[in-house]
Amino acid sequence: MHRTRVRIVADVLDANDTIARANNEDFEAAGVSVVNLMSAPGAGKTALLERALPHLGVRVGVLEGDVQGTLDAERLASLHVPVTQIQTDLGFGGECHLDANMVRAALPEVPLDELDLLVVENVGNLVCPAEFRIGEHRRAMVCSVAEGEDKPLKYPLMFRACELVLVNKIDLLPHLEYDLDLFLANLRTVNPACAHLLVSARTGEGVEAFRDWLRAAASPRTPARPPAVAPGVPEPAR
Amino acid sequence: MHRTRVRIVADVLDANDTIARANNEDFEAAGVSVVNLMSAPGAGKTALLERALPHLGVRVGVLEGDVQGTLDAERLASLHVPVTQIQTDLGFGGECHLDANMVRAALPEVPLDELDLLVVENVGNLVCPAEFRIGEHRRAMVCSVAEGEDKPLKYPLMFRACELVLVNKIDLLPHLEYDLDLFLANLRTVNPACAHLLVSARTGEGVEAFRDWLRAAASPRTPARPPAVAPGVPEPAR
Repeated sequence: MHRTRVRIVADVLDANDTIARANNEDFEAAGVSVVNLMSAPGAGKTALLERALPHLGVRVGVLEGDVQGTLDAERLASLHVPVTQIQTDLGFGGECHLDANMVRAALPEVPLDELDLLVVENVGNLVCPAEFRIGEHRRAMVCSVAEGEDKPLKYPLMFRACELVLVNKIDLLPHLEYDLDLFLANLRTVNPACAHLLVSARTGEGVEAFRDWLRAAASPRTPARPPAVAPGVPEPAR
Repeated sequence: MHRTRVRIVADVLDANDTIARANNEDFEAAGVSVVNLMSAPGAGKTALLERALPHLGVRVGVLEGDVQGTLDAERLASLHVPVTQIQTDLGFGGECHLDANMVRAALPEVPLDELDLLVVENVGNLVCPAEFRIGEHRRAMVCSVAEGEDKPLKYPLMFRACELVLVNKIDLLPHLEYDLDLFLANLRTVNPACAHLLVSARTGEGVEAFRDWLRAAASPRTPARPPAVAPGVPEPAR
């Protein structure tokens, strides 16, 4: 029975990857870079975006994933950025994550031609969102210091899936028994290459560094093929 | 396709409920009351149990659900209570919740005959654990004040599924812009009958009230049938 379950999961993920590739082709065709932003519930994804998106200097939109409600979408729409809502309980069975098909169903509502950067705010969950590619270029996550130092060890797939961890609510550090060095050591244990930024959506500390990361994410990516060599110019020696 | 997905989900939940009933019969036969304790990652379930289980005065065991690792089980085992670990990535595809079958598979390792109360610490997640009954008698959840006031509105199924919400980390209230009255109003909106306790695993505030709740949960439940009437005693008038 467990083997059957694992095979079904593998089939679901294969189908998801096929749709994710189609999403990615659409993003590439429109010249839009896409960041998949994940976290546990209440880690501060929306609050960080409220801080970072104004004054970003690139054309940014948000695709907002929630099980129910439009609270976060309303908060972000007040910043006058285009926000599209996905509710996973409407037609998607109350899923605990976004998948490529949900994002694909929402794309007709996203003004891709008017954007350089699309931030997808995933459902608050440290397990399943890490398993489902949605066609994104980069994955980042928010981890609040109020959640404790052990989270990379307990949810390693999530921390391995990301290239950036935003360590949020650092204004609370004086009031917590939280060992930041231990958290960073745990992060390195599961993902040695992962970058991190110390941020506080409340005080604004570190938010400019997050903006820099978003701007770099939004800039056109280096094409995968090597640059063409001009006629008559010899190949460099290797 | 969405209708198919919803039907599959319904079938899975039906099968789950059948196994949950079998678990419940085993718990009843052994005279053990079972509490399903849920929360988002890092809300403080383990820390609260570390505080509350010593001096509880009833024979208590823990069934510990995690995606990976044994960190929480080790913390609780140091209290000298019997702890059984379920890792959902071993044979269960890395599920983001416990289901009745995972609990059933673990039951041979749980010394039911030596317990009055079994606390099941579910996987940290505010979505799927609420959908899967495991044979428990009561459901409670921990919600940290660091997670914000909006969680009942964003994860209503979880807050509706529980009869008690432990509002944890209240020692942080002076350092947060957190409106406790707003949180409680949001909780009442989705579950008017839900009880709550204000607690701090760090300072111990409110922990004795949580112990009282656990003791009440552990005491034998009133049988569902009315008490037998002694021969010769007339039925009370209605």
